[in-house]
Amino acid sequence: MREKWFSEYWTDSIKFSVKVKKHLYSHQTKFQKIDFYDSFELGRFFTLDDIMMANEKDQFIYHEMMIHVPMSVNPTIRKVLVIGGGDGGSVRELTKYPAIERIDMVEIDEEVVRKCQELLPLTACKLTDPRVRLHFEDGAKFVQTAQDYYDLIVVDSTDPIGPGEGLFTKEFYEGCHRILGSEGILVNQHESPYFNNTRAEMIRAHRKLAALFPIATVYQAFIPTYPSGHWLFGFASKLHQPNEFQANEELLGSFGLEYYNKDIHQAAFVLPTYVKKALESE
Amino acid sequence: MREKWFSEYWTDSIKFSVKVKKHLYSHQTKFQKIDFYDSFELGRFFTLDDIMMANEKDQFIYHEMMIHVPMSVNPTIRKVLVIGGGDGGSVRELTKYPAIERIDMVEIDEEVVRKCQELLPLTACKLTDPRVRLHFEDGAKFVQTAQDYYDLIVVDSTDPIGPGEGLFTKEFYEGCHRILGSEGILVNQHESPYFNNTRAEMIRAHRKLAALFPIATVYQAFIPTYPSGHWLFGFASKLHQPNEFQANEELLGSFGLEYYNKDIHQAAFVLPTYVKKALESE
Repeated sequence: MREKWFSEYWTDSIKFSVKVKKHLYSHQTKFQKIDFYDSFELGRFFTLDDIMMANEKDQFIYHEMMIHVPMSVNPTIRKVLVIGGGDGGSVRELTKYPAIERIDMVEIDEEVVRKCQELLPLTACKLTDPRVRLHFEDGAKFVQTAQDYYDLIVVDSTDPIGPGEGLFTKEFYEGCHRILGSEGILVNQHESPYFNNTRAEMIRAHRKLAALFPIATVYQAFIPTYPSGHWLFGFASKLHQPNEFQANEELLGSFGLEYYNKDIHQAAFVLPTYVKKALESE
Repeated sequence: MREKWFSEYWTDSIKFSVKVKKHLYSHQTKFQKIDFYDSFELGRFFTLDDIMMANEKDQFIYHEMMIHVPMSVNPTIRKVLVIGGGDGGSVRELTKYPAIERIDMVEIDEEVVRKCQELLPLTACKLTDPRVRLHFEDGAKFVQTAQDYYDLIVVDSTDPIGPGEGLFTKEFYEGCHRILGSEGILVNQHESPYFNNTRAEMIRAHRKLAALFPIATVYQAFIPTYPSGHWLFGFASKLHQPNEFQANEELLGSFGLEYYNKDIHQAAFVLPTYVKKALESE
């Protein structure tokens, strides 16, 4: 039988390929093409417009780093807005905190959520938590008209091409700033510093956030299945510095985390010189 | 014209591919197959038995992290033994230190060195430094019979398959321990924690070093073109702790480094929980 591989172009001339056991599902929604695969090395994974979003092997890294960094800086967070994040992994990590009272998740494409609930329960398992409200609408529009205030906004978006584009604009970040409380924190997926294409996006996103928030920096994690494996998260904050580690360590220890820990929290903000230079460039 | 790609199997079912401008050279030596390519994204690169060794785009990360970590822990290092490292990148970084008096480089395959001098001067440019002595012989044998003492041994090897195999054995590490002075440090390329195949090598290498040296740990860097992009270095030491950062910061600042800095030195030793667990496993 002929081998099947899924290939993702990290740049025009760099390709990452995964041998596939089975192509489980493929559908063009109103917004994007969704595919689910089962693979030998990464377990199940899904793609949007042929870009890998999450896989069973390393999804824990992305979701732990997205959520536990801001939650450890301000453990009194009660109301969270998740933009995107249709696979549910960010929500799953958030629901570990008893202090969180409400999670609004705004995902433009309901089919992503429903298919992840069916085929990727590892990430989607907590979307039925009673504190979670699902809003199937455009995150950019939601933020413009929202009347509520949030303690934390998690921008768990795709790349700034296609449906994710509106989640990297100045207007979107301004809207987020407006609906964040006085101790509010925003974290977002912030692309990679390594390849030219994603580095340009990283710099643009950072400048926009730094123009709005008194505290704006990035932190990083080893995520082998994202382009270059060197992935950044943005941390923008009205009051709290990123090194204010205030977590209840007993609670944190009970979560069974496999990547994030107290020391990683600090180390994740330490950037290689070339990344610092790129962020500081005019 | 048909596109040419170089593909490397990171595991049986994960493949990393680079679009090639030109295949510059290919030759089977007594020890291994050497190929040089020019590429769009990574510039020139070379492979040994179809495994990428170094490329112009990210070679600085590997070589800076290999050398400046131990040199900052003990800036009085004068005599260095480099095992492998035929591309010359580790030697290039070592020659930046005026205090270093002698560098013995032991590379089994002279053709790697000669071809890198011709086709990859970015890494090989300092192999003619008067402090450098090139020994074209088996590093494992060299260490068994060496009568000199060294302050630092840099094991800049290929993977533990083929010619590099002897550089991951207990006997080899014992030999290194014997010829290291009382303040001696050994650093080595220590594989990746992510995929099962390299994680097993990581664990084996760590156990052997930890059985011999009072201080044995690992540190990490984002190296996008090595499998998973999450690459480890071993740090084994008779006296100095890895967090003893003693570098002359003015000198270090004059090197024009693009990855390593004082904060990265400490952060590189902070491991994700799953990596710590794997290293501590029995």
